[in-house]
Formats: sequence, C-alpha cells, structure tokens
Amino acid sequence: MAIQPLRGMRDFLPEQMIRRQYLMDLIRAVFEDYGFSPMETPAMESMELLGKKGVGGEDVDNEIYTFRDKGDRRVGLRFDLTVPMARVVAANPQLKKPFKRFQISRVWRYDRPQAGRYREFWQADADIVGTSRMDAEAECLAIAVSVLRQLGFRKFRIRLNNRKILNGMVELLSVKKEKYPQVFRTLDKLDKIGKKGVREELRGLLKAKEIGMIMEFIERRGKPKSVMKRDLDVFTTTVGDQGRDELLDIVDKAKVYGIDKFIEVDFSLVRGLDYYTGPIFEVSIESGKNVGSVAGGGRYDNLIEMYGGRWTPATGFSFGIERIFEIMEAEKMFTQPGTKTEFFVVAVNDGCREEAIRVAEQLRAAYLDTETDLMGRDMKRQLEYASKSGIPYAIIVGEKEIKKKRYGFKDLRSGKQASMRIEEIIKHFGEGVQKK
Amino acid sequence: MAIQPLRGMRDFLPEQMIRRQYLMDLIRAVFEDYGFSPMETPAMESMELLGKKGVGGEDVDNEIYTFRDKGDRRVGLRFDLTVPMARVVAANPQLKKPFKRFQISRVWRYDRPQAGRYREFWQADADIVGTSRMDAEAECLAIAVSVLRQLGFRKFRIRLNNRKILNGMVELLSVKKEKYPQVFRTLDKLDKIGKKGVREELRGLLKAKEIGMIMEFIERRGKPKSVMKRDLDVFTTTVGDQGRDELLDIVDKAKVYGIDKFIEVDFSLVRGLDYYTGPIFEVSIESGKNVGSVAGGGRYDNLIEMYGGRWTPATGFSFGIERIFEIMEAEKMFTQPGTKTEFFVVAVNDGCREEAIRVAEQLRAAYLDTETDLMGRDMKRQLEYASKSGIPYAIIVGEKEIKKKRYGFKDLRSGKQASMRIEEIIKHFGEGVQKK
Repeated sequence: MAIQPLRGMRDFLPEQMIRRQYLMDLIRAVFEDYGFSPMETPAMESMELLGKKGVGGEDVDNEIYTFRDKGDRRVGLRFDLTVPMARVVAANPQLKKPFKRFQISRVWRYDRPQAGRYREFWQADADIVGTSRMDAEAECLAIAVSVLRQLGFRKFRIRLNNRKILNGMVELLSVKKEKYPQVFRTLDKLDKIGKKGVREELRGLLKAKEIGMIMEFIERRGKPKSVMKRDLDVFTTTVGDQGRDELLDIVDKAKVYGIDKFIEVDFSLVRGLDYYTGPIFEVSIESGKNVGSVAGGGRYDNLIEMYGGRWTPATGFSFGIERIFEIMEAEKMFTQPGTKTEFFVVAVNDGCREEAIRVAEQLRAAYLDTETDLMGRDMKRQLEYASKSGIPYAIIVGEKEIKKKRYGFKDLRSGKQASMRIEEIIKHFGEGVQKK
Repeated sequence: MAIQPLRGMRDFLPEQMIRRQYLMDLIRAVFEDYGFSPMETPAMESMELLGKKGVGGEDVDNEIYTFRDKGDRRVGLRFDLTVPMARVVAANPQLKKPFKRFQISRVWRYDRPQAGRYREFWQADADIVGTSRMDAEAECLAIAVSVLRQLGFRKFRIRLNNRKILNGMVELLSVKKEKYPQVFRTLDKLDKIGKKGVREELRGLLKAKEIGMIMEFIERRGKPKSVMKRDLDVFTTTVGDQGRDELLDIVDKAKVYGIDKFIEVDFSLVRGLDYYTGPIFEVSIESGKNVGSVAGGGRYDNLIEMYGGRWTPATGFSFGIERIFEIMEAEKMFTQPGTKTEFFVVAVNDGCREEAIRVAEQLRAAYLDTETDLMGRDMKRQLEYASKSGIPYAIIVGEKEIKKKRYGFKDLRSGKQASMRIEEIIKHFGEGVQKK
C-alpha cells in the first residue's frame, strides 16, 4: 500500500499549512479591503468548457486531468479559476456590474512533475467584470503590490504589455490571422528556448526580415515613457495605437496609487493563454531567489461571450501561492510558530483533571487557543509535550491552586512563573476576537 | 455550450459564499480554540487507498469518482477527509501525539443527485490521534456543541452508541464474524427502510428469535443511566462490557463540559463506515426543519494500522456544512449582508476621481473594506450602485470637500449625512484588524 500522496501532489502538515493559511488569509483580507466578494465553483467542469478552442491554449487536453465519468460524459479538473468564473458570469447575467469576485482555491494540471511544479496547487484570483476602463487594471496592480507589501516585500517589478500592441505588430506582417496565436506562443517561449529558439520557430511562419523586426521589437523594455516614445513608429495600426494609449493610461492611473515607479513595459511578455485581449502584466519580487513572476493577469474582453454570455469586458489576475511561499521560506520571512495554540492547561494530578478542563474552557470562551491533556500523562510529560509542541504558556492546576483560585502561569520559553487568576490571564492577553 | 455546472455540483455566488465562509471561518476558529492545527491533503488519491476493504463500506467503488489517469493508474476523488488523514499519519510517524488536526475542505461522491444531496460538498473534520482515552470523545462533543452554540443554536441532541456494544451483541448471536458489517449496515438503514425492511434484510443472516432480540435491543434509546441499567443483561460479553464502560465514561466527562444533558444512548446508531471500532455519535439540532444529524463521528483505532502505520488509536468527527447551512437559511439565522464592503467612495465629477481613489486607499490602509468607481459612472449612478449592492456607507468626494479636507459621509440606509475628515471616519469605525 503506497502511503505517499500521488505523484506531483502533496500533503501539507500543520507547520506548512499554518504558513499557507496565513498567506491565503492575508490575500483574502486584501481582496476584501478592495471590495471583492468570494465565489466558489466546482473542481470539475465539462470538457466542452475546459477544452474550448481559443481559451486555454494549444494543448489543454494534454495538460489537464480529463476523464469520462460514469455517465460517459467527458469531464476534467479545472486548470485555472478564470474559465469557470467566465462560465458563471455567462450563466448569471443578473449579477451587478462591476462584478468583483475573488476565489482562492485549488487547480489541477497534468504537468510532468518537476522542481517547483505540482499537479495540484492553489491559486488566488481577483477579477473585475463589466468595465472597459483601465481603472480596473490599475486597481489590480495596486492590490498585487498591497498584498506583497503586507507580506513584507519591498521591491517589485511590474512588467506590462498589451495584446493589442502585439496584434498591431503582427498585423503589419505577412502572417495570417489564424496564425497569430502560434506567433504569440512562440514569443512566449523566449525565456525557455532563448532568442535562437524563437527565431527558428518563427521561420516557418514569417519572412526573415520580419523575424528580425519582431526580435528587435520584443527585446525593448524599460520605463513606459521612454519605450513608448522610441517605439511610436511601430504603432501605426489602429489596434496598436489603442494598445499604446491603454498602457499609458494604466501608468497614469498607477501613479495615483504610487506604484507607477515599479512599471516596466516589456513587449516580449505574452502570457500563454489564448483568451487575453488587452493589457497583460506580471509582477515579480526582486529577491535573492529568482522565481519569476508571483502574480500575473490581464484583460479578456471576449471570454464571457465565448461561453454564450453577453459581451462583457473583464480583467483580472492571479497570485501564484507556491512561488510566494517559496520565496518567503527561502528568505525566512515566516514568523508563524509550528502551532497556533497559546496555552496548555496542566493538571498536576488525576484529581485536578476536571478543573483543568474547566480552566481550559474559560480560556476558550475568551477565544484564546488552549489545549489540555487527553493522554492521561503526568505533570512532567504534559509540560514536555507543551514545550516541544511550541506552545508558549502553561497554566498549572494543582490542589492548592484550585483552593486559592490562583493558577501557576508559566512562560515555557523563559521559564518564568507567576500566580494568577484566570480573569487576570484573560485580561493580560486580551480577550481574543473570534475570527469570523 | 452548457453553462450550468455539472449535475450534482454547484456554483456559489457571493451572497451564498459569504455565508458559507462565515460558517467555515467560525468552525475553524473553534477548532483552533481547542488547539487543533490545519492540515491539507490532495483531492485525488490512489484507488488502492480509497477502495481498501474494511474502510469505506460495501460499495465505495460505485459511490465515488474513480478514473484512470494518463499514466493508467486507478485514482479517485476523496470521499471523506478521514481516510487521507489516516494515510498521512501512517506515512509520518514522527508527528507528536496527540496529533490534533482539522481540515475544512471538499469531498466528492458519485451519488444520485437529489434534494440536499450533492456530488461535491464541504466537510469540516477535527480528529484526535494517539489517545485511547474517552477524554478525546468528550472534547469532540464539546467542540460540536460550542460551534453550534456560537452559530446561534440552543437545543441539541447527541446520540451516542459504541461499536463495541454492537459487536458484543452480535457475538451472542449465531452469525459469523465476517457477516458483522453486513448486519450493521442493515441496522444502519432503520431510518430509511423502517423496522419491517430491517427485519426482512436480517432474515438471511439471523434466526427469527435473534432478529426479535436485536430489534427489541436497537429500539431502546434514552438517557444514558436509565438505558444502561435496564440493558445490563445484554452486556454479558467482554467487549460489550467495555463498550458500556466507555459510554458511561464519556457521559461523566461530558458533565465537566456541561453537555451531558444533551446525550441520549441510541443502540440503533451505526454510522455507515466500516472503520469505526468504538464510540460513535451524531449531533442533531432540535429545529423546525428536520434535517437529521449535523455532525457525527467516532473512534477508528485500527484505521492507521490498516494503512501500514503503527497501531494508533484515534477518534474524530465531522460537521455537515450543507445541513447546518440549510437549517440556518430556513430559520433566517444569517445576518450577513450580500457584500462585505463597508464604504463606497463617490467621485462627484471626473476631476475628483483621483482624490476618490486616494481616499479609498486611506480607508483600505486602515483595513476598512472599500470600493470606488471603476465604470466612469456619474455621481448619481455611483450612489445607486452602492445602495443596490448593500454597501452601508458612501463617502462623497467633490471639489469643495477636497479643499476643506472634509468629506460627505452618508449612511445609505437612513439617508443621514455628515461632513467628516477621513481620520475621523477611521476613528469612528475603529481601525479594522487585518484578518490574518
């Protein structure tokens, strides 16, 4: 019997999960600060939905978990949270716009497992549905920076591009419209296969001179104003012009949030998915450990219509929980202990067990996280357990203490001890707030 | 293109999800109050694990989602959270005992969808691994009652039985050990198929006289002391005696928590799963809407060993989120609004939009949930949106207000308006606590 999780999947033991929970709770709190509401969709969707052309990319069928259910329907596990969300919006035209929803949940990919790549992982998505204005993009960027700052990061890079600019560029070339996605997917591999690899792949699609133009173009990156000025020549198409105007608009609006200084225009940014129609962006942390972007997203104005809804402009982004987690681990940024329990109530002997439970119940009623012995251990072993578990405080309940209604209060890290009433302990630690 | 979720699965729109989130957050908070730590396991497990004999019951293969993955492994979606947890404990003997973990997550069943039955739903589990003492059972019952009380319920029924008592009973009969689970599964159908149905199903397994005995026995229920006394004759086997002593021990310990008054012994309680070995219990709410039990669990001392771990006693229970949700909806117990957003910052005209964003950012920095316009709407339509969305307060940012640094503060429910500085508003509403 294999007792390890399936390949590419993981168990999260408490110490790990407490940290992930902290991360996800913080992201959720910031989404709520910006007025986003939670939504949840099923883990499983029809393949008609997940495999739809023009959505996920070239190879969705091979990259996700698909199977036939017992009713012989082709179904699959969701590979992202955007596609199901678009379906929900299509199915619920009554939703008030802007519809601002977040979802922090798991997705599945049938990837070859490798370092840092898993077959099951969390995503945290926030999307704004119903507005064409770049206000939405600016707010998304502000949220991304706010989360990362609250996690303790200070330096960021926001890479910004626009699918319209890429469209405008290829419109000037000899390639047919149906082949645009193929061109973009090739450009997207720049980091993976390098310039030479990209050039080779483009050879079947474009003329040599065009490849030269395109390569020179996508390598330009830098501060928005300078890049935009220098490259004005490229934007001679209507759609390219519009793309440039949108980018400049985002930069202006980002200024109000004080985050424009992080923005760099990068024409090589594509983002794999076919559904993007406008601005796209990726946020990375400047850290010792280079793990690529930790958040990314973009505009997908046609996706909801593709699922049979009204045409509805939309934009959104997603945090890569795994990558943020990795950086925070590497930089030792987590301060969470291995347990959230604050108090262990020790029964000095068997005669004191009932009173120990009563004391524990008083602390719990004040929302203070408290354990008491469930193993019939003696006092010494109770203290050992508390100490090894990382519980910071012990409350000692013996016969004398019960009589005096004053209990031993011990700091298990410093060893310091005092005698206190339960009410004093609760007052001292502040009645916890039930986290609801 | 079907835009509804798959059969038996559901989308949770914000209003629904805000309520579910409240419910799950509260359960999590109480689990933490009692010193439980979070753990998470994959949605998918091998069928070797999920289909193991003596664990899930007779018909696991037909009742869960199973399929072959692309590597031709037989895998399935988890049908509960206990089996994966037992695997994790077996794989991680280093975990300190008692190991108290909770998990609030989704499970999947390939059930025929019907009223109140879904193919995907949440469970909230808390388990205590490593102790044989009934202290664990008493704590589980205390947690169940504490959660239900904090949700606003007042009257409960805890039905309590012990698999050992059932074992002791069948030991006295002519049925072979291999058939015990079959007998228990039949008794478990009492509510579904009635006495007559149970009698008929037992006919193939037991003698007529024995069926009479067993029927008479399982119909006894009531306060522990009276039931236990009256039925002492049945507990003539060692295992039956032990089962009775354990039940009485739980009742004694429940007294310390002040919850013994809710306990009824019910020998017809079986709980479907094969893995239970000791006390089993179900908690129901006394409410107008009869929805059966809302929490249930029991002891499963052999499960971890079955997965190749050391023999490790364990007990735990699970909340049925759906059922609790249904009752709370029916009894109109949810007070959550349709949005958690507290403030909408209104820009009086286009010239004030940037300042409106800055004001919103100040409120968000104080962790107050705030929206501002992303649609380019005029003042009237901004107020309409806020009002219809159920946002309670609007802050009006116009040119005069910007000059005076005092903003219009409007209660959208009462219509009352005042002029306030942002700092005053933040002070008035109390700087929110980031929920982390």
